[in-house]
Amino acid sequence: MNTSTAKPVVLLRPAPQRRDRIFTPQALAALHELFTVVDLEDTPGDEMFDRHLPEAFAIIGQPDLGAERLAKARKLKALINVEGNFFPNVDYAAAFSRGVRVLGCGSAYSQAVAEYSLGLAIDLARGISNQDGAMRAGSEKYVSESNTDAVLLHRATVGILGYGNLGRSLHRLLQPFHNTVRIYDPWLPPAVIEDTGGIAAGLEETLSSSQFVYVLATATADSAHLLDGPALDLLQQGARLVLVSRAAVVDYDALLDRLVAGRFLAAIDVWPLEPVPHDSPFRGLPNVVLSPHRAGGITQAFHSIGEMVVDDLTLMARGLAPVRLQAAAPELVGRYRNKPVT
Amino acid sequence: MNTSTAKPVVLLRPAPQRRDRIFTPQALAALHELFTVVDLEDTPGDEMFDRHLPEAFAIIGQPDLGAERLAKARKLKALINVEGNFFPNVDYAAAFSRGVRVLGCGSAYSQAVAEYSLGLAIDLARGISNQDGAMRAGSEKYVSESNTDAVLLHRATVGILGYGNLGRSLHRLLQPFHNTVRIYDPWLPPAVIEDTGGIAAGLEETLSSSQFVYVLATATADSAHLLDGPALDLLQQGARLVLVSRAAVVDYDALLDRLVAGRFLAAIDVWPLEPVPHDSPFRGLPNVVLSPHRAGGITQAFHSIGEMVVDDLTLMARGLAPVRLQAAAPELVGRYRNKPVT
Amino acid sequence: MNTSTAKPVVLLRPAPQRRDRIFTPQALAALHELFTVVDLEDTPGDEMFDRHLPEAFAIIGQPDLGAERLAKARKLKALINVEGNFFPNVDYAAAFSRGVRVLGCGSAYSQAVAEYSLGLAIDLARGISNQDGAMRAGSEKYVSESNTDAVLLHRATVGILGYGNLGRSLHRLLQPFHNTVRIYDPWLPPAVIEDTGGIAAGLEETLSSSQFVYVLATATADSAHLLDGPALDLLQQGARLVLVSRAAVVDYDALLDRLVAGRFLAAIDVWPLEPVPHDSPFRGLPNVVLSPHRAGGITQAFHSIGEMVVDDLTLMARGLAPVRLQAAAPELVGRYRNKPVT
Amino acid sequence: MNTSTAKPVVLLRPAPQRRDRIFTPQALAALHELFTVVDLEDTPGDEMFDRHLPEAFAIIGQPDLGAERLAKARKLKALINVEGNFFPNVDYAAAFSRGVRVLGCGSAYSQAVAEYSLGLAIDLARGISNQDGAMRAGSEKYVSESNTDAVLLHRATVGILGYGNLGRSLHRLLQPFHNTVRIYDPWLPPAVIEDTGGIAAGLEETLSSSQFVYVLATATADSAHLLDGPALDLLQQGARLVLVSRAAVVDYDALLDRLVAGRFLAAIDVWPLEPVPHDSPFRGLPNVVLSPHRAGGITQAFHSIGEMVVDDLTLMARGLAPVRLQAAAPELVGRYRNKPVT
Repeated sequence: MNTSTAKPVVLLRPAPQRRDRIFTPQALAALHELFTVVDLEDTPGDEMFDRHLPEAFAIIGQPDLGAERLAKARKLKALINVEGNFFPNVDYAAAFSRGVRVLGCGSAYSQAVAEYSLGLAIDLARGISNQDGAMRAGSEKYVSESNTDAVLLHRATVGILGYGNLGRSLHRLLQPFHNTVRIYDPWLPPAVIEDTGGIAAGLEETLSSSQFVYVLATATADSAHLLDGPALDLLQQGARLVLVSRAAVVDYDALLDRLVAGRFLAAIDVWPLEPVPHDSPFRGLPNVVLSPHRAGGITQAFHSIGEMVVDDLTLMARGLAPVRLQAAAPELVGRYRNKPVT
Repeated sequence: MNTSTAKPVVLLRPAPQRRDRIFTPQALAALHELFTVVDLEDTPGDEMFDRHLPEAFAIIGQPDLGAERLAKARKLKALINVEGNFFPNVDYAAAFSRGVRVLGCGSAYSQAVAEYSLGLAIDLARGISNQDGAMRAGSEKYVSESNTDAVLLHRATVGILGYGNLGRSLHRLLQPFHNTVRIYDPWLPPAVIEDTGGIAAGLEETLSSSQFVYVLATATADSAHLLDGPALDLLQQGARLVLVSRAAVVDYDALLDRLVAGRFLAAIDVWPLEPVPHDSPFRGLPNVVLSPHRAGGITQAFHSIGEMVVDDLTLMARGLAPVRLQAAAPELVGRYRNKPVT
Repeated sequence: MNTSTAKPVVLLRPAPQRRDRIFTPQALAALHELFTVVDLEDTPGDEMFDRHLPEAFAIIGQPDLGAERLAKARKLKALINVEGNFFPNVDYAAAFSRGVRVLGCGSAYSQAVAEYSLGLAIDLARGISNQDGAMRAGSEKYVSESNTDAVLLHRATVGILGYGNLGRSLHRLLQPFHNTVRIYDPWLPPAVIEDTGGIAAGLEETLSSSQFVYVLATATADSAHLLDGPALDLLQQGARLVLVSRAAVVDYDALLDRLVAGRFLAAIDVWPLEPVPHDSPFRGLPNVVLSPHRAGGITQAFHSIGEMVVDDLTLMARGLAPVRLQAAAPELVGRYRNKPVT
Repeated sequence: MNTSTAKPVVLLRPAPQRRDRIFTPQALAALHELFTVVDLEDTPGDEMFDRHLPEAFAIIGQPDLGAERLAKARKLKALINVEGNFFPNVDYAAAFSRGVRVLGCGSAYSQAVAEYSLGLAIDLARGISNQDGAMRAGSEKYVSESNTDAVLLHRATVGILGYGNLGRSLHRLLQPFHNTVRIYDPWLPPAVIEDTGGIAAGLEETLSSSQFVYVLATATADSAHLLDGPALDLLQQGARLVLVSRAAVVDYDALLDRLVAGRFLAAIDVWPLEPVPHDSPFRGLPNVVLSPHRAGGITQAFHSIGEMVVDDLTLMARGLAPVRLQAAAPELVGRYRNKPVT
């Protein structure tokens, strides 16, 4: 491979992501058109990586990058995480001080997660999967007989925990429902929330005042078991809890107790242990929509990662700023505790 | 019961609807406050009805009202259908010529149907009830493994068949998805559709150009089996068909063939025969969301009927026009072929 | 002219409207294609009108139609007002009892009025025409110096008086501003307003709680001088009053007093006497945007009347209901007191 | 002044901005509550500034900060520009390499500019300030007589040049108008534009296909005289040009020629020389709305700068990332050529 041309060099080592999941053939061709791509997906060991590191303009993936190694990457302008979680195997402080853009792809999933969350909320409101199961079992109830607990989203009170990409994308989808939307996000000043038409509220008020509660918070030390037993007890009788992000935020034992007691309904997409044990008591609950971690990982989301990478590297090669991937905040990049998806 | 007071007389004979399903205690109290209500729900026979007919200001329900009987209702100003379908047991022409408002409650269901339709569409797009069933059976697939066919609603092509109350309510909910929305409604001039941002299109174009197709058409002689085999063959491979209104619009044999062949996915809420036979081959199809006629009949919809009745009778008693119930069109009231729900 | 063909006959006598203002050549051609049009715009006297009346399917315009004359119009199905105001020269009750659709074109103006009203509001908020005048006089002030009173629409409190076509069209345009919108309309039950996200409020609350107040009310006996001195005194210091419809609703002497005193700002498009007298003291007020009755009467609005007429007559000739023009309410048609525009 | 407490030190030297224009008393009190504020607004010379620099956590303003001076600012975490334009008196590269957040306040103006731009567009569409002037001169024309050129915004074609904060804020306000919106921004990949429902287009297509064109571009070497004579000739006859940002983008001689010829209409808020010369030929043009650089600088915008500063410094003092002010892009901060407002 001749990497001595004038094209900037991009090192591609996407693990635990996979090249062909995020790049369509068209996107990969566009990347090769503009860059000298050193594709190391199938190359074990560090030798080739270290050989090309000094000439790298960008790295796609999240290989180990301590300060020493970063010091050798003298031309490096961008470190692009294509998996969604920032691991501690990179010396981010060193990267920032060297002027390396640390870019993440979290926003690629937000439309998918928002649509899925809305679908789960309507399912909880109306019992769609419950009666689909009933029709398959021959026990369905017609017309209003299975609608005794059904409620509208229209003009309902809504709570959103966490107002990052996911929460904002969801909020946009809720516009036509004329909800009263309370938002709890301790990393945001109230004005950010109020400018979008939401109500900045504390956790207690958000939980106790909302018929629908969406959990879309990032896992950090601060948010661990944010929803413990006492917090869950604040939920209204018959509330709908949509639990999409992240399992670490919730005490599942406390959650199970309250669901067994029929206190509220829940749709659950994330689990403390995945796969969920076969004998998990959640599996048989009638007031739950069960979902095996499916909210974000769809083909269009993966492909948008590849397109974002190509678009932003193209801009950066022109001397412009990236606009699609998200710049990691130096203040926050060490706080995230999301586990990588395996 | 003394009905000789100055309050206008309202005859209440809501069958096949039920008084306590549509009137909350508060709404019923408000009705009694303003009107002398002759409640005939539990009074069999016509004697009492005919006795009070000459003094009736309004009738709630749809008792037999031929021209002769209407001629006796000299003070009648409103005939209020609280069930949703106009039966041919009323001489509507005679009612119109006598200046009687014929009012329907169809719009009471439209928000409920629109939300349910959107929920079905997201379910079809993302396999929510399919994987809920899988988790209950212990056969779920995690993360992207069960997402191979998943698609976004965002920026998808959408077709809506029928643009009455239901179609318009749904269209409003779709605004944040930035869809290209084609609408087929042969009763509407294109300008009505285009003013809402939709594209007025023919049936063929709507079916063949849309990833999501919502069937929200009224059953009439013209729309019977609108979706027959050749029409269904226009759908794209992998299209999502949301079938909510009305069963008469679709040829279910042709539909079954194409679903068995895996041509597309469908969510079905209305059925040619209800209850659906236990051995119906639809019950086992993996690419279908099964729903036992549940889209509209929820408590909030029923209660809104009662509120609409009270609001509009209040206006009419003040000499104003009704604004919540829908005035039946003389041109159309004989065309509807929806069967009453039993 | 041979009017004995099978095509339905339409009598066209549009005064005080003019044929060529509402019908584009294309629309007029479409009308002639489907109907035998008896064009009486330039035919004085009643002879020709009365000769064709017995065969008329529809009348476009508002000629004198007493009960006797209507009795001769045995085939008449539609009486289409193309000017905007219902005059008392028609026996509307007789028309209704004969099953004649009485249709109005008021909605043709609503988008134009809504956009103009929003433009006036922004002008009042930001002083656009004031500083345009200043630049023409060489007395402008730059940057923030002329912005001391400037306010945002974003998140402001808004009041709308009258929630017919005009008010609803305006409300839609306000969606992105995240306003708190209070609506006063005594002909509507609160639920109609609340379903749109507005707050149903009384007149006093609407006036005293709103930074921007839009007057879009119909003139009736009830609404005459709705905004008299005491009502205007409820407005906040510095409020913005957008007065578009109708002059009869406001006491202009009281309004002048308060504007001279600098209590609030106003944009005024309707006037008790038009043309406004040359020495009207309104003409020199700095806190007023002056407008000579221009909100609705633009070419696109006029042309949409013609298109609505063609669309609805086409539907009615097919036996369907009209959907674009508005059916006059028998209860209300006699209440309007708007003067025709001359 | 005792700055030895544990509170982080903030140096306040806001020129050319003014402290009391951006901080309300409440905001200033909040700033003092959390920080040791060294207020240098009224302190000439560098002595005090240099004395406090080594302990500064943040600097509000844009004093000269070469690499040498920055090297002394060992605790500096944020350099906050509160005027809107980045001057070249700071060694931004040095700041970035030291991990200093360089934050701008441009977004504070975007709602004000967007609302003003919409107001100008409606004025151009409807002649509001033109007829306000006519009424003051006694030469107004009533009803449709002054509306011959009036057009709706509804469903019009729209072009936006520049899709930064200003363009996006405007685009949100246009949602209810159902426009076809073409957007030209050479710094953005098409996907960013298309995700918002816009059409990513080239300059020529945007100019030639749009009835309304909004100029909201940043001044850079690339955008200088973007709208020269040949570009302006692409505009449609009768187009509406809203020119808000920046004067350097337009060739005003070429613009004047075309306005004198009546080719199109324009609203102009920015000028190559301000104040505009008294004898400027623009001042007398009837097809122009004249505005003395007023789009952004309103009280609410200025106060939001102060609130953004307090909010973000509060977050940063907690170890979190700023979310309201905009992080300057290292790639772009040297490119801007906007002159400071004097």
